[in-house]
Amino acid sequence: MSTAAVAGKGLEGIVAANSGICWIDGDAGVLAYRGIDIHELAESSTFEETTFLLWNGWLPKESELKEFSAKLAEARELDPKIIDLLKSLPSNGTPMEVLRTAVSALSFYDADEKDNTHNANVRKAFRITAQIAMIVAVYDRIRKGLEIVPADKSLTHAANFLWMLNGVKPTETATQTLDIALILHADHELNASTFAARVIAATLSDIHSAITGAIGALKGPLHGGANEAVMRLLQAIDKAGEDPVKHVKAMLESRQKVSGFGHRVYKTEDPRATHLRRMSEQLGKDSGNSKWFDMSRAIELYINREKKLNANVDFYSASTYTTLGINIDLFTPIFAISRIAGWSAHVIEQLDDNRLIRPRAEYIGPEYPTHWKPVAER
Amino acid sequence: MSTAAVAGKGLEGIVAANSGICWIDGDAGVLAYRGIDIHELAESSTFEETTFLLWNGWLPKESELKEFSAKLAEARELDPKIIDLLKSLPSNGTPMEVLRTAVSALSFYDADEKDNTHNANVRKAFRITAQIAMIVAVYDRIRKGLEIVPADKSLTHAANFLWMLNGVKPTETATQTLDIALILHADHELNASTFAARVIAATLSDIHSAITGAIGALKGPLHGGANEAVMRLLQAIDKAGEDPVKHVKAMLESRQKVSGFGHRVYKTEDPRATHLRRMSEQLGKDSGNSKWFDMSRAIELYINREKKLNANVDFYSASTYTTLGINIDLFTPIFAISRIAGWSAHVIEQLDDNRLIRPRAEYIGPEYPTHWKPVAER
Repeated sequence: MSTAAVAGKGLEGIVAANSGICWIDGDAGVLAYRGIDIHELAESSTFEETTFLLWNGWLPKESELKEFSAKLAEARELDPKIIDLLKSLPSNGTPMEVLRTAVSALSFYDADEKDNTHNANVRKAFRITAQIAMIVAVYDRIRKGLEIVPADKSLTHAANFLWMLNGVKPTETATQTLDIALILHADHELNASTFAARVIAATLSDIHSAITGAIGALKGPLHGGANEAVMRLLQAIDKAGEDPVKHVKAMLESRQKVSGFGHRVYKTEDPRATHLRRMSEQLGKDSGNSKWFDMSRAIELYINREKKLNANVDFYSASTYTTLGINIDLFTPIFAISRIAGWSAHVIEQLDDNRLIRPRAEYIGPEYPTHWKPVAER
Repeated sequence: MSTAAVAGKGLEGIVAANSGICWIDGDAGVLAYRGIDIHELAESSTFEETTFLLWNGWLPKESELKEFSAKLAEARELDPKIIDLLKSLPSNGTPMEVLRTAVSALSFYDADEKDNTHNANVRKAFRITAQIAMIVAVYDRIRKGLEIVPADKSLTHAANFLWMLNGVKPTETATQTLDIALILHADHELNASTFAARVIAATLSDIHSAITGAIGALKGPLHGGANEAVMRLLQAIDKAGEDPVKHVKAMLESRQKVSGFGHRVYKTEDPRATHLRRMSEQLGKDSGNSKWFDMSRAIELYINREKKLNANVDFYSASTYTTLGINIDLFTPIFAISRIAGWSAHVIEQLDDNRLIRPRAEYIGPEYPTHWKPVAER
């Protein structure tokens, strides 16, 4: 294949798109949305404002933010047939399979389904963003045999999710912690799920197809699924009453992967980990139960020293969400509740200046031509 | 981003994976599965044999083929809950939305859902391959208010699909035509849907996620959706009683895209088009209705001459399927019924030697650092 350039495996270091959404400097540990550092956004922004920023490219004026937040709240509607679908799915499924299936089904009830223009996709992005959070909360209530909590359109996106999940109004600390987590996870350039969404959208398929594919990619343990793997490790260590460092040492010795460390792009600390570590520690102190933070911190220091690997976004989100009382198998769905902001921005950006994404393979199979032979001669 | 190589837009000419499945020489117009030319396979193979070849790398011996075909036939089972799901979906949806949603839901009823090993994925590939064809046929019966036709495990894959779709045993010509079409569409290296499947699988997510994403990508009019667009054009010309060449000339003059022509990889005739043209012509003669073939041929010759573009796989599949009596909106689902063979082979190959597929973007957004400002100061 003489005309094709050979890329590193996994497209490492290959530029697959021009994008104005997210800036990452992996060497310096910088992440910025539309030029604004993630630290400033984590300290001062909200999920609604950050989503506006990702979708539009600038920080909203007061009236813009008010209108945007109202639109997102008004989109808190699930067709009763989607609730029937959630009720019909077996309780042994994972919430990520449920989310993938339900988001695929949303297109049937979206009035703009057949309209793939920029404005229609923005309208659909509002709805999908609102609906993903609702699907996760509603399914969790259904599987627990609890009554479904109707959306409260007066609440913020983060507060409404916690309200629909738990049926009690969340504390300010819980809402703020989740809101910051949603800001931190909202976009990350051409991560695998976002890239999958762009590959799908680039065939001029619809945004529901792109997001459904992205959810499927996020589910994987090398991507969003890692935060669940971290918590399962912490729980296993706790249950066995083991020393976390000894346990992780044994894992490394038997060449097992410890989830939540290292990153394809960052060569220094993942800037998102800084905030999640701080929140995990604070929540531990506030709740009087620092167990998960303390275990996490011990493991982090050991892996830093032994493997020269830094904690990534997944590592402290595990203890943070657990201390907020959230089920482990909702961690990756919460990642999706946030990342839909970035997925939508990337799908719309892709379609605004589209070209089919179609790379080549380096052929390593049987020599051409190998001839077909009748079955008796094989 | 000094460390990243800049690729052509849409990853044109970039090698994204090593693969032993499919060889394409775009300049010479060669397509081969595991080294065997598509012309030989179209003339002599069957969909079952070709799928064995794609999955295993060699042509099956008699006993291997028998076992493989039996396994595929035995996998013709749909959980009753999937049929309930198909019944619950609105009749205004497209079959591709239905297929995407139903394949996502299949994972709930697959005993191997949580097993991502090679052997489990082969077992799942048998089931998904059998089930995709069944879902398309069953949904078509449901939306037409017809009784669901139970699978006939004594038939070939192609014949059983036509049987479940129409409720009458297919003619030998119909079965053979569809079987060849399934062979021709079974794989095409890193086309957009297959690439989407590999990106999703590479996070170590599950095969149902990968195939669901691939179906979403195939749906797009720049990919599988093109065969439906071709037929809608032919029907519009026919309905208006226009001269096909005049109509297409006017389209080109107003810069409209004519679907079914040109290909990212082939610079000469798409070798699959050769067979579909032949079958379209023969079916027209046999049925005494050459209208669709004649219109297609006139358009093809005109576009060849004016635009130096060749017909691709989608162009003559439109008239071929229409002459077989298949609804337009099932053309892309039939593409999926075939391409699942290739998708499965690629997902399994990806997982056998996996690395996360995570490219970079060239940042073109606001300069870093742009600072966050309180809303009153914006």
